Amino acid sequence: MFHVKTPEEVLEIINSNFSTLETEKLIPLAEACGRTCKENIIGREYVPEFNRSTVDGYAVRAADTFGCSDSIPALLPLAGEILMGQAANSPLQAGTCVAVATGGAVPEGADAVVMLEFTEDYGDGTIGILKPAAPGNNLIFKGDDVAPGKIIIPAGHILEPHDIGSLAAMGITSVKVSAKPIVGIISTGDELVEIHEKPKAGQVRNVNSHVLEAMIKQAGGKPRSYGIIRDDEHVLACYVAKAVSECDIVIISGGSSVGMRDATAKVIEESGSIILHGIAMKPGKPTILGLIDNKPVFGLPGHPVAAYLTARLYVCPLMAKLMGSNIKQYTVTARMSEAISSNHGRAEFVGVLLESVDNELLAHPIRGKSGLITSLAASDGYICIPRDCEGLTQGTRVSVNLWKY
Amino acid sequence: MFHVKTPEEVLEIINSNFSTLETEKLIPLAEACGRTCKENIIGREYVPEFNRSTVDGYAVRAADTFGCSDSIPALLPLAGEILMGQAANSPLQAGTCVAVATGGAVPEGADAVVMLEFTEDYGDGTIGILKPAAPGNNLIFKGDDVAPGKIIIPAGHILEPHDIGSLAAMGITSVKVSAKPIVGIISTGDELVEIHEKPKAGQVRNVNSHVLEAMIKQAGGKPRSYGIIRDDEHVLACYVAKAVSECDIVIISGGSSVGMRDATAKVIEESGSIILHGIAMKPGKPTILGLIDNKPVFGLPGHPVAAYLTARLYVCPLMAKLMGSNIKQYTVTARMSEAISSNHGRAEFVGVLLESVDNELLAHPIRGKSGLITSLAASDGYICIPRDCEGLTQGTRVSVNLWKY
Repeated sequence: MFHVKTPEEVLEIINSNFSTLETEKLIPLAEACGRTCKENIIGREYVPEFNRSTVDGYAVRAADTFGCSDSIPALLPLAGEILMGQAANSPLQAGTCVAVATGGAVPEGADAVVMLEFTEDYGDGTIGILKPAAPGNNLIFKGDDVAPGKIIIPAGHILEPHDIGSLAAMGITSVKVSAKPIVGIISTGDELVEIHEKPKAGQVRNVNSHVLEAMIKQAGGKPRSYGIIRDDEHVLACYVAKAVSECDIVIISGGSSVGMRDATAKVIEESGSIILHGIAMKPGKPTILGLIDNKPVFGLPGHPVAAYLTARLYVCPLMAKLMGSNIKQYTVTARMSEAISSNHGRAEFVGVLLESVDNELLAHPIRGKSGLITSLAASDGYICIPRDCEGLTQGTRVSVNLWKY
Repeated sequence: MFHVKTPEEVLEIINSNFSTLETEKLIPLAEACGRTCKENIIGREYVPEFNRSTVDGYAVRAADTFGCSDSIPALLPLAGEILMGQAANSPLQAGTCVAVATGGAVPEGADAVVMLEFTEDYGDGTIGILKPAAPGNNLIFKGDDVAPGKIIIPAGHILEPHDIGSLAAMGITSVKVSAKPIVGIISTGDELVEIHEKPKAGQVRNVNSHVLEAMIKQAGGKPRSYGIIRDDEHVLACYVAKAVSECDIVIISGGSSVGMRDATAKVIEESGSIILHGIAMKPGKPTILGLIDNKPVFGLPGHPVAAYLTARLYVCPLMAKLMGSNIKQYTVTARMSEAISSNHGRAEFVGVLLESVDNELLAHPIRGKSGLITSLAASDGYICIPRDCEGLTQGTRVSVNLWKY
């Protein structure tokens, strides 16, 4: 017998029972955004290679400007100009200055740049400095951006556009990323027809395969659909064996309610073992997680909303674990627009629509039956009402988990 | 002369000067997640096509169960079983019940389903109902999910996995979405070299093209890079003309600081008109927006962080506008881990790293110079310190905009 687990216990089980896959892929920088970095990216050279100015102005020795002002400018002979893309060949002599542009190299010996706005060009080869500069002013020093040996991006980080920028700055043109986990999807149910078919009486379209495929892609995996399997234990066992041999994770949807629900549990038990059966949540209670050939096999509910929610809550974190991804999901704070009751002894997950009113977010709960996927169509995310809570009053502050992944 | 605009004014200008493009594409459902719906999706049939049970149990007329209890069950002859995927051919006779499984069809005349748990099978063809059912209990009615004429997904909505589910439920196998706007990227600067090259003294790698490409893809556009253009006004004019003819938006990066900065403004002015020049923000002040052949042309700062930030703040919303996308970006609430000063008369944007401490988020400000793209490498998002604010004290509650798009 399995005791029903809480959602937190399920996440703990996922975290402790599975480890990151070794599979990796070397891909060009242009394809790396959104992928998980497989190794620490360590600085190998100095970026920039030279001291750079961050403004248009004059490179100086800061000490030569101390005490100057609008009325008593420091007068420094102009010793030349450094053009963009060129090195500063000779060091700056004390008591002189050199014109530099934003991003340009600053000569050795210069420890500050005075902005053009605070200077005057007297036209006779002398520049008046009207404001004292402190050492380091308007300068990026050699290696400020990257220095050899420094960890710039840690393994497990999901690459964002600015990370692509850091890699580009370091001259890294291809990156080792985690391979996308392959997630097999098996939909079971005699009532299911393909989505292009017109359901006859008693039939419904196979929604779950399509929701799960989209979710798996969005979360960085590679979906592989095995289509609709009739309610037959032997056929199911056959497809599960095939999927387990070809995938990193297998999802069976629909077979976790009585009838097929027993078949899913039986197939997993006969070819492997069951880790958990039943989660104290609504919707999603009959969820199963098992192991076949050391690979995770989920039995998710057949109702599309329950299947999507449990996949978001448990399959996505498992995918992240297999990729070694450091997922950061933050919640958004909102206030309940109306009261909602909950009294099931299970954590209840409710879709919400967010609305901005007077600089605050209102969360409108969506009251749907768990089979109604369109009830979520307009929603922005979901809230969780803890199992020991009888409901939320209007105006209660809630944490909203966005669907946006 | 142009007056410097505030960030809010710039967004207002973008919103009022440009309109949604007509270009659309019909794509298969499997590729539609993340794309912007180009038309209202309207229900064309009833989903489900029949009344469905949400539990395993017995379909009944609710009235036949009124007043029953554990000790005085309602005794109803079992009139048959409806198998999954099959229609209920004959209506339910008053005073009888029919066995149904979760998701199965419920016969006409039945207005509730009693869960198996609250029944007893006496084995003689009679079922005992132990708990009264109210009309509608454990039922999804025909058309509850989708009814003809109802708007299920409005035009402009960015499709998420559960929306794919709604479309699948309705039998929609391909969707009209907004075409991806083509965004041309021109990097200017004599100091720039390609990222696979080792910069010589005074040179730096072309970071911006790569950051912008990644960002444009992430935001749903199609980047087209025109490489590095030397600091030459005529060459720039030539490339801008080519890019304007091939793209929906053109970004010139690097040319908005003195020297080339004048060239960018001049090129836009000579071939079209300048809408704004200068934004009261830090970094990003020298940003330009102009129009050539009715197409938006941006001049972004050369510093990678400034270029990325201004692109995120202004190019992404413009892309959304061209696609007609209803972008919803929510902020995350955090507390400043330390004080930060700001006193520039401009809105200051500061990268932050988020850390979860005691059920609260701490925002650690990243103190970098705007040229340092790696300063953002570990960051999660950014905050904006308003221009009339002298800084934030430790513990101040701030709204963090996540980089994650």
